[in-house]
Amino acid sequence: MKHVLKNHHFLSETLIQSQQRLTGHLVRTPVITNDEINRMCRAEVQFKCENLQKTGSFKVRGAFNAIFCRKPKELKNGVATHSSGNHAQAVTLAAKTAGIPAYIVMPENSPLIKVRGVEEKNGSITFCEPTLQARENTLQQILEKTGAFFIPPYDHPDIICGQSTVAQEIFSQIPNVDAILAPLGGGGLLSGTGLAARFFAPGTRVFGAEPESVNDGFRSFKSGKVETNPPEAITIADGLRTHLSPLTLDVIRNHIEDIFTVNEASIADAMEMIWSRLKIVVEPSAAVPFAALLQQQQRFEGQKVAVILSGGNVDLAQVPFL
Amino acid sequence: MKHVLKNHHFLSETLIQSQQRLTGHLVRTPVITNDEINRMCRAEVQFKCENLQKTGSFKVRGAFNAIFCRKPKELKNGVATHSSGNHAQAVTLAAKTAGIPAYIVMPENSPLIKVRGVEEKNGSITFCEPTLQARENTLQQILEKTGAFFIPPYDHPDIICGQSTVAQEIFSQIPNVDAILAPLGGGGLLSGTGLAARFFAPGTRVFGAEPESVNDGFRSFKSGKVETNPPEAITIADGLRTHLSPLTLDVIRNHIEDIFTVNEASIADAMEMIWSRLKIVVEPSAAVPFAALLQQQQRFEGQKVAVILSGGNVDLAQVPFL
Repeated sequence: MKHVLKNHHFLSETLIQSQQRLTGHLVRTPVITNDEINRMCRAEVQFKCENLQKTGSFKVRGAFNAIFCRKPKELKNGVATHSSGNHAQAVTLAAKTAGIPAYIVMPENSPLIKVRGVEEKNGSITFCEPTLQARENTLQQILEKTGAFFIPPYDHPDIICGQSTVAQEIFSQIPNVDAILAPLGGGGLLSGTGLAARFFAPGTRVFGAEPESVNDGFRSFKSGKVETNPPEAITIADGLRTHLSPLTLDVIRNHIEDIFTVNEASIADAMEMIWSRLKIVVEPSAAVPFAALLQQQQRFEGQKVAVILSGGNVDLAQVPFL
Repeated sequence: MKHVLKNHHFLSETLIQSQQRLTGHLVRTPVITNDEINRMCRAEVQFKCENLQKTGSFKVRGAFNAIFCRKPKELKNGVATHSSGNHAQAVTLAAKTAGIPAYIVMPENSPLIKVRGVEEKNGSITFCEPTLQARENTLQQILEKTGAFFIPPYDHPDIICGQSTVAQEIFSQIPNVDAILAPLGGGGLLSGTGLAARFFAPGTRVFGAEPESVNDGFRSFKSGKVETNPPEAITIADGLRTHLSPLTLDVIRNHIEDIFTVNEASIADAMEMIWSRLKIVVEPSAAVPFAALLQQQQRFEGQKVAVILSGGNVDLAQVPFL
């Protein structure tokens, strides 16, 4: 099966190959439920625990796929990326598994937990000023100096196919899912989820969820253009500040049902509920789709809804509800 | 197969029947691993996540088994127990599932999260003064008034057989486990784990772990008598303050390899590591076996070790490492 978009053709076989590439390397993360949450939502809510994935987030799926689908000679000088967050650890672990060096550009104000995560996997870190310009310039220098292969965080079909494996696993773990809710940042996970649903579970509707304060994705979805956030816009779900690319916008406009936005207080509440009820640690970004579900209860009443908990990398000293 | 002890005969069939009784009602909890923890421990550490069990702890296994193995006429007036903790929620959920009332005596200083857990499952709570004497007296009055059936927290073969299902699942989830570490309070879980290993995995050694400050279990294991703790002895792992019964002491002396004790700081450190590395919420009692493993690294080097994370019911506002 094939889906023709403006920017790329996605094939069902490519998605399946991505899943096969990851098997044995990554965790088939569990799906968990909670009776009280089901009662509260008047729905059957299934939480897909990517916080329990290696490196603590789904990002490692895209990074693995992007690295393991390349020819060895393309990778002979290693891989590189810039990231202040989960993508850094993801690329580092994938590179380590492939036996090649990883060069990671990180802003000098990165949380210690993320720096430690890269160092523990023998990633080679170059710190830079905390601006996008400085990150891109520093990465460019690293790429020229080392000849490393660039692994982007979301704007590439290989990354999107890697992220599609979350939904592929959901479909094999839970029969007849009515809807999937996923967080929306750059759109890699949401694009992959939408494509997987279109190919393998066409009856399943996919929704994105985004903080109100950085609602570029919602606006892009409506306008059809890549919208951005003002630089001063902040959210506790800082992993979702990124804007879409033309590729992810195209996939999302074609395969996603709707985008919900939620305010900061509802994100903190949803996060607290996940910690205290489900007994798992999730980062604020991962709580955003559940916040959207709580807000949209009527829309999902009586349905079987999968909620993707995207990651669990949070500084325990900075939890908003403690 | 049969094991003859001073106080009771345990049969392998009885343990298997317990597992069958719970199937479909309770969660077959996942086992998770972490590469960094494995490296740190120089062992293959498999965490059995009973914090993800219904009611947030393994206690529900014993309560279910104790209720579901009774004849309906024995339960016609419901069930009752006293508990400030996980056993209260466990009995309430099991009773609700069986369609009978649950009468729970709780000390008036019980944490709100535990009270809420019982109320949400329609348990009928009677508050009493926070002394063992008041709890037992109040329970006696309830039993006489209602004719309810008493479900003890650990001192009964049906409870022990129910708790044995944690280890039974471990053996079906992980081949060739060298050792299992479980927390030791009243000894229900540790007894069940020891019996399951003896029957179904005789090559697997089972160890208990206990806070140093309430080391009654360690002393009982050495002396062969039920030892107690001074009333002023406190620990953050308050679920493990209970002393053994003659029955659990007998099983433990026959089937457990050794008991380790750990100090308060090491419990808090182990708990922090589980939250931040494994991305799951565990209560202090649940961190005790992992604290013991970290302390006993040389003893378990190169082995495949299952660590039972017994529960996740913790007041998020009172986390020791935050």
